[in-house]
Amino acid sequence: MLNLDIKPVKKDFIDIAWKRLDSLTKPPRSLGRLEEIAARLVAIYENPVPEIKKKAVLVFASDHGVTEEGVSAYPKEVTSQMIFNFLRGGAGINVLARYAGADVVIVDVGVDYDFGKIKGLVSKKVVKGAGNIAKVPALSRDDSIKCIEIGIKLVKEYHLRGYNLFATGEMGIGNTTPSSAIVSVLTHSSVEEVTGRGTGIDDETFNRKVEVIKRAIEINSPDPSDPIDVLSKVGGPEIGAIAGVVMGCAELKVPVVIDGFISTAGALIAYCINPAVKDYIFASHNSVERGHKKALDFMGLKPLLDLNLRLGEGTGAALAMTIIEAGLKIYSEMATFEEAGVSKSDK
Amino acid sequence: MLNLDIKPVKKDFIDIAWKRLDSLTKPPRSLGRLEEIAARLVAIYENPVPEIKKKAVLVFASDHGVTEEGVSAYPKEVTSQMIFNFLRGGAGINVLARYAGADVVIVDVGVDYDFGKIKGLVSKKVVKGAGNIAKVPALSRDDSIKCIEIGIKLVKEYHLRGYNLFATGEMGIGNTTPSSAIVSVLTHSSVEEVTGRGTGIDDETFNRKVEVIKRAIEINSPDPSDPIDVLSKVGGPEIGAIAGVVMGCAELKVPVVIDGFISTAGALIAYCINPAVKDYIFASHNSVERGHKKALDFMGLKPLLDLNLRLGEGTGAALAMTIIEAGLKIYSEMATFEEAGVSKSDK
Repeated sequence: MLNLDIKPVKKDFIDIAWKRLDSLTKPPRSLGRLEEIAARLVAIYENPVPEIKKKAVLVFASDHGVTEEGVSAYPKEVTSQMIFNFLRGGAGINVLARYAGADVVIVDVGVDYDFGKIKGLVSKKVVKGAGNIAKVPALSRDDSIKCIEIGIKLVKEYHLRGYNLFATGEMGIGNTTPSSAIVSVLTHSSVEEVTGRGTGIDDETFNRKVEVIKRAIEINSPDPSDPIDVLSKVGGPEIGAIAGVVMGCAELKVPVVIDGFISTAGALIAYCINPAVKDYIFASHNSVERGHKKALDFMGLKPLLDLNLRLGEGTGAALAMTIIEAGLKIYSEMATFEEAGVSKSDK
Repeated sequence: MLNLDIKPVKKDFIDIAWKRLDSLTKPPRSLGRLEEIAARLVAIYENPVPEIKKKAVLVFASDHGVTEEGVSAYPKEVTSQMIFNFLRGGAGINVLARYAGADVVIVDVGVDYDFGKIKGLVSKKVVKGAGNIAKVPALSRDDSIKCIEIGIKLVKEYHLRGYNLFATGEMGIGNTTPSSAIVSVLTHSSVEEVTGRGTGIDDETFNRKVEVIKRAIEINSPDPSDPIDVLSKVGGPEIGAIAGVVMGCAELKVPVVIDGFISTAGALIAYCINPAVKDYIFASHNSVERGHKKALDFMGLKPLLDLNLRLGEGTGAALAMTIIEAGLKIYSEMATFEEAGVSKSDK
């Protein structure tokens, strides 16, 4: 199932887009990245008059055994408590997705809590929490693949229902730790270079976190040339599902907006499986987490926003959806020089 | 009329805002600048539950005699042609203001074209084009004050009609030239440091532009300690009106979102008249124009967006309005830890 048919976008469509953009009543390229967004959308959708229909933020939740090592500022219980908050609509992602006109889909891929049947929660539990990577692998290889497939299938299902712009989000206390481990291994960076303070930890906890990540990589020795091995050994369920969303979007030729550090770790897994996914990814924001920039640079992605966000959940991605729509509006709604009877540059 | 009653915002309201923000279900300050926006809105409106009602982008248009010197990539006629484009709704500012849910108000303060009576255009013509600053002052002192007063009055009028979030914009072929001159004089920077390529000029035109600005400052010798003198000698009508909008908003205690380089030159005039206006200004974006950052740094303002925009018209400000509203939504709509039954940080 992971052998998807993913191809880079076609240059012809980019040319079509720029031809129109340069005919609009403004100095050429003066709307900067808004124009680049529009050109990318035309190419991704392979449509000279693209339209954003329904939007969804897919939020994957999981627990992480590594919280036993004291790497997070919050107790593990917060993962399940926040799911209830999501379902009631009171979290940051609910507010910003609502603002962006996007639906929020909450998916349990690995929370260590028995929700039973509960309205609004998509139950796809693969494990009850990832293994404590300081001691054992996060997931078996089979479970890793299962998580990726959950992401792919979910995108396909929502695409059939008319959604054509997706954002990724996550909830999982402790999940910046596996994200740093993944980014360290796949970008060949030192652990120190890619480790940040997550939800806000003190110096002592930070030093412990660095040690835990180093130990996790040493004990599990993930193979840097095998992204699924890296996901299994030092990753986590929600990170795998996000990788799947990115791959699914790329195969379906719809754009995917990735959130902060954890989502980017997921995108990095997808990118290392098939670098062609890159053309379908919009990086939403520049997170405060240090490893985030490393991962984005590795993929050659430049974030749209820089607002000191570090909440996760998909909040930055939801906000970036509003910028992406603005880019499309420019392309679709502005008058051309000819239509408006405005003189062009004489230089 | 320019002796307005402008005071810094009150710290009490900032404290009230942060108390609520820190009680919301997220790690403290993890929504970064969105939270800062919310805290500032509470303080500006002096209201612990602020509400953004009607929004307007005030776009001031004028011509500039200095275009005779060949400093712009576009012919002067484009100023009036673009006004027709604005009135038909086909320009960048129309698209982005519509997207932000803001009304666009087009005001002629100095266009060298006789529009007659024309639907949708606010006629406040003070001059038919500013003087060619390479040879003469841009405006008389009286006309400068008139332009500022137009901005103040317009804000007051729209505020009475229920508008409580304003953005500034402008249209005026050649107006980056007086903006560079203003920023050079008021921030005590060299002309080279604050001069950019406007709508897109070549090396030869750029060098000429630098020379023209230097000559304008030398010939007119504006008094750096008298911002109205600077506006008169090397400024322009739309820049004065924008200064008035900033001052009017500050007196009324409503936020004003400033667009790029030219709007920021206007805000700088207001700031040099009364530095307390700063608390009411949101800097929307980091323009490609070099002098922009100089002016923002001088006032201690940090832009919200960085999207390589250099169109002007108010486009960046309209887009930033959407980010400002997102900040307020976070503040107003998120659940508190108590409401949601979520555990707080144990660190």
